[in-house]
Amino acid sequence: MTLPPPARVGQRVDDVDTPALLVDLDAFEANVRTMAAFARQSGMRLRPHAKSHKCPEIARAQVAAGAVGICCQKVSEAAVFVAAGIADVMVSNEVVGARKLERLAALARQAHVSVCVDDADNALDLDTAARGAGSVIDVLVEIDVGAHRCGVPPGRDAVLLAQAVNACGNLRLAGLHAYQGAAQHLRGVAERSAAIAHAAALAQATREAIEQAGIECPLVTGAGTGTFVVESASRVYDEIQPGSYVFMDADYGRNSWEGLPAFTQSLYLLATVMSVPTAARAVVDAGLKAHAFDSGMPLVHARPGLAYVKASDEHGVIEVAAGARAPALGEKLRLVPGHCDPTVNLYDWLVGIRGDAVEAVWPVAARGAFY
Amino acid sequence: MTLPPPARVGQRVDDVDTPALLVDLDAFEANVRTMAAFARQSGMRLRPHAKSHKCPEIARAQVAAGAVGICCQKVSEAAVFVAAGIADVMVSNEVVGARKLERLAALARQAHVSVCVDDADNALDLDTAARGAGSVIDVLVEIDVGAHRCGVPPGRDAVLLAQAVNACGNLRLAGLHAYQGAAQHLRGVAERSAAIAHAAALAQATREAIEQAGIECPLVTGAGTGTFVVESASRVYDEIQPGSYVFMDADYGRNSWEGLPAFTQSLYLLATVMSVPTAARAVVDAGLKAHAFDSGMPLVHARPGLAYVKASDEHGVIEVAAGARAPALGEKLRLVPGHCDPTVNLYDWLVGIRGDAVEAVWPVAARGAFY
Repeated sequence: MTLPPPARVGQRVDDVDTPALLVDLDAFEANVRTMAAFARQSGMRLRPHAKSHKCPEIARAQVAAGAVGICCQKVSEAAVFVAAGIADVMVSNEVVGARKLERLAALARQAHVSVCVDDADNALDLDTAARGAGSVIDVLVEIDVGAHRCGVPPGRDAVLLAQAVNACGNLRLAGLHAYQGAAQHLRGVAERSAAIAHAAALAQATREAIEQAGIECPLVTGAGTGTFVVESASRVYDEIQPGSYVFMDADYGRNSWEGLPAFTQSLYLLATVMSVPTAARAVVDAGLKAHAFDSGMPLVHARPGLAYVKASDEHGVIEVAAGARAPALGEKLRLVPGHCDPTVNLYDWLVGIRGDAVEAVWPVAARGAFY
Repeated sequence: MTLPPPARVGQRVDDVDTPALLVDLDAFEANVRTMAAFARQSGMRLRPHAKSHKCPEIARAQVAAGAVGICCQKVSEAAVFVAAGIADVMVSNEVVGARKLERLAALARQAHVSVCVDDADNALDLDTAARGAGSVIDVLVEIDVGAHRCGVPPGRDAVLLAQAVNACGNLRLAGLHAYQGAAQHLRGVAERSAAIAHAAALAQATREAIEQAGIECPLVTGAGTGTFVVESASRVYDEIQPGSYVFMDADYGRNSWEGLPAFTQSLYLLATVMSVPTAARAVVDAGLKAHAFDSGMPLVHARPGLAYVKASDEHGVIEVAAGARAPALGEKLRLVPGHCDPTVNLYDWLVGIRGDAVEAVWPVAARGAFY
């Protein structure tokens, strides 16, 4: 039921059908290079999060630039990337339910697969599935380092869970998953640094406790686009998992980035002005079904005085400030998405552009892969 | 790239893979019947809005119950329903851009197609496209009756636009589109009634002005689930366009419905508890990519003391009140979506259930059809 792509290679950007997601390839490639260079220079394993892009072409570009593999959040998402030839996929999330565990265990025969656990019974179920599939699965014990989402408490609970995993014949304890998601969008560099310093201390103490219990704990993994520099400097984390850096978005744009590696906005929502009812109001053809609104409205790019102020299912209302150049009926506007990940998940295609021309049309192959 | 369905017919509901959208067929069928009976009894043409469900099976059920056809918001959406055999499709929206107009004009050779305009140049472009395709397109002049989205002002501007449409050889003026979207979610019955009384007066005056200019204006169409009773009682509207009534959602649940036909929640998001880190917190596998958050959080159905309080891309955090039965790892919870339309647009499949069993698996064939 996938719709035909909104563009074809060689077309002018202005002829792309809307709504469409554009990827500015110069900015995108620079972002991929910048992160890879950072990881290389700081001696960190880079495992970018593919939940942001859901696109095999982008995963391959990341691996080609030096990534050790990718992260996914769901088994069905991992399956798309394994099928596309990515050899090392971490599901940086818990997987619960026999059907999902069976699929994960089967995938582990085709690629190097790892997954998080935060429950001993779930580890036993995972072991059963792996035994059934004849595979061995790398397991990360997830600890709650401040995000208060999933994860066991650091310290004693994590040691007990590591022991439970270690006792499973078809599981291998790969280390700790210590992702502080709540820190990524703290606005100030100092706030983010403090949150990650706390997370790193908890991860370090937990790793030591596990090793004191006689179990190897080779890897501490975590970090996102907002904080990866801090984890990398911590001497605790071995691997970073940033995702949004390939695209960036309006919400990351509200973070302070002083002194940090610079990433450039590469993702734009192309929308058409479909109504100009008054001099102060225009309406574009991209609303709630073309953009995720959890992190606020999209921004209008490079058109001072225009603000996207209200959305309904298929409409976005643009307010035109006094004195601003009014949008013309049929004009195409570029919007900067509020939150890249759930916005990309609304699209079947990414349109790669260079300057004025469409250079690539990439399927968002894991769009909707939330099983 | 469509994923396999999360369920198969005959399966138990508890075995459906998650996240999944369930449609309780008893409630759904009652909703379809209730609206059809209302329209019949009040002598109104019923043209349900398919943007809510994007599902040909549901459109066919609505037409079988007496609907004259359906509404869509986009040309690509209309194409899906025409291909599925719906003979009368109104695009209740403006269509701008040569490529979209050409597709619309081609569709008008296969089915009865109508569309809104709020700009004279756009009417000329539409006429050119229709002439090129050898089709005739019914046109509704959209007037702004208070929603302040698209539409020309009622009165003189609408008459001028009607004259412009009337002068086009391949367009036929079908009437006025007078939808008051901003009234649908006003909480009180009296507030909604007042907003629609105002809209109806504007529509009536505009219709009279067009007819005084010597142009027939056979139809006034509009209305949604929140207000259709008021438009129907107005003696101005001839046709109603409710969409959400087939499913309902948490936001419509916050409206007062005193004395109005009753619709029952039929749409549920089935999610799995994937982590139970503390007695006061559980995490489900449905977050920002499985639910639209523009109208707030989903509600937890039939589990007192559980509240969905926070979402990230693939996680939903459930707060467990003191004394409430704690969710078990692997338990499936039913959530009532905050806003049905953009939530349905995240799914490739609707799982029709009756009691404990899966009875139907319907493709959301127009999912993502926003071109």
